[in-house]
Amino acid sequence: MTAGAPRAAVPEGSLKSYRKELWFEIPGRRAFINITPDVTTCLGQSGVREGLVLVNAMHITASVFINDDEPGLRRDFEQFLESLAPHAPTTRWQHNLTGEDNGDAHVKRQLFGREVVVAVTDGALDFGPWEQIFYGEFDGGRRKRVLVKIIGE
Amino acid sequence: MTAGAPRAAVPEGSLKSYRKELWFEIPGRRAFINITPDVTTCLGQSGVREGLVLVNAMHITASVFINDDEPGLRRDFEQFLESLAPHAPTTRWQHNLTGEDNGDAHVKRQLFGREVVVAVTDGALDFGPWEQIFYGEFDGGRRKRVLVKIIGE
Amino acid sequence: MTAGAPRAAVPEGSLKSYRKELWFEIPGRRAFINITPDVTTCLGQSGVREGLVLVNAMHITASVFINDDEPGLRRDFEQFLESLAPHAPTTRWQHNLTGEDNGDAHVKRQLFGREVVVAVTDGALDFGPWEQIFYGEFDGGRRKRVLVKIIGE
Repeated sequence: MTAGAPRAAVPEGSLKSYRKELWFEIPGRRAFINITPDVTTCLGQSGVREGLVLVNAMHITASVFINDDEPGLRRDFEQFLESLAPHAPTTRWQHNLTGEDNGDAHVKRQLFGREVVVAVTDGALDFGPWEQIFYGEFDGGRRKRVLVKIIGE
Repeated sequence: MTAGAPRAAVPEGSLKSYRKELWFEIPGRRAFINITPDVTTCLGQSGVREGLVLVNAMHITASVFINDDEPGLRRDFEQFLESLAPHAPTTRWQHNLTGEDNGDAHVKRQLFGREVVVAVTDGALDFGPWEQIFYGEFDGGRRKRVLVKIIGE
Repeated sequence: MTAGAPRAAVPEGSLKSYRKELWFEIPGRRAFINITPDVTTCLGQSGVREGLVLVNAMHITASVFINDDEPGLRRDFEQFLESLAPHAPTTRWQHNLTGEDNGDAHVKRQLFGREVVVAVTDGALDFGPWEQIFYGEFDGGRRKRVLVKIIGE
C-alpha cells in the first residue's frame, strides 16, 4: 500500500461488536423494569447501523422479554407466574433443599425466557408500535446483571 | 484503483443485511399460520449463504415459534394455552381495565415466545426434519406484522 | 492494486461461520443434559472471538435452554412440566391421534423453548456466574440432534 493511502484495516462492510453490562438491584423479590432506554443508549454508542442486538439476563432467576409497558399487564404477569409456580411453600421445590429459597424463580424465568434478539435497521431498534424490552426480576435483593451484545456494521 | 477494475466496495466476506415485513389479517381471534415458505423466499432474496435469520412478531399479542405442522397439534396448542390463560371472563386480567379485552393474548404470547433465530447454511434454512416456522395470532381481526431480518454473507 | 500486494479477499473484520451437529440418544423418555462443554469446544474450533452462538434443538420434541446445573432443580423442572402437560393419558392430546404418543413432548418443548443465543466475547461464551446450556429431551429413545451455529469474526 502506498504511503498516504487511507487506512483500509476496517473496510466498509466489516463486523462491529459492542458489549455492555446493565446492573440492577431490585429491593423486593420481584419486579419488571423497562430497559428499552438503556438498550437504545447502547445501540447509539455501538455505531451499528445494521445488525442484531442480544439482550440476556446473566443470572438464572431473571428474564429479559418484550411486551407492552402497561401497569395492569405487569400485575397480570406477576400473578400469572405466581399462580403457576408459587414461591411458597418453599418446600414445594427440591432446589430449595440446597438452602436456597428461589426454586420458584428458576421456573418463572424458564416461562418468560432468558433473552431477546432484536433487529437493528438504520441504526435503530426495529420495533413494532408497542414493543418494549423488560428485565424481569424473580429473586431480587442483590446486584444482578443484564448483557447487551450488539453485532453488525 | 485503476479504471475498469471491479468494484471492491463490498469485499468478499462483508456483512449483508436484509429486512422484510410479512403482513397478516387473521379473521378470528386466534390461529397458527405456517410462514416457512415466506421466510424461505426472503432468504432467497437476501442472497445470504451463511448467517442468521431473525423472525419476530412486531406486536405483543402474537408469537413466532417453531414446531411440527400437524392439525391435531395446533388444536392441542390452542386448547393448552386457553386452559392456562383463558380469554374469558375478561375481568380476570387487569390489563383489560384499560378497555382492551386481550389480556389473555399478552400472556399466551409470553408462553410461546416472540421470536426464533434460525441458522443459514449454504443459502438454506438449516432445519431438522420437521421444523416449521409458525405465526401464532392470539388477538386477530386486524392487520399485524412479522419482521424477517437476515444477517450474514 | 499493484502486483505482489497481499490478497485482500478476506479482509480483517470479515465474517466467519461455523456449524456442528451434536447427537444424543437418551435411553428414557426425558432428561436434561449439560452441553456447555460441547458448545465451548465448538467455539474453540470456530476461531470466532466476537460474535453470536446459536444453539437449537433440531427436533420439535426437545429444548435447548440455559439455567443452573443443580440436580434438585432438574427434578423441579421435570415435575413442573409433567404437571402442566402430562404424558398420560395419551388420549389427552389430539396430536396422538396420528399414532404418536408424544403430544405432551411438543407442548413441554414450547414452554422451555427451542434455542438459546449466547454472546461471544474475547473468544469465550459470555456467561454470568451460573449459566449452563442444557439439552432438554422430552421424547427420547432415539437419535436426535442439536445444531451449533457460530457467526462472528
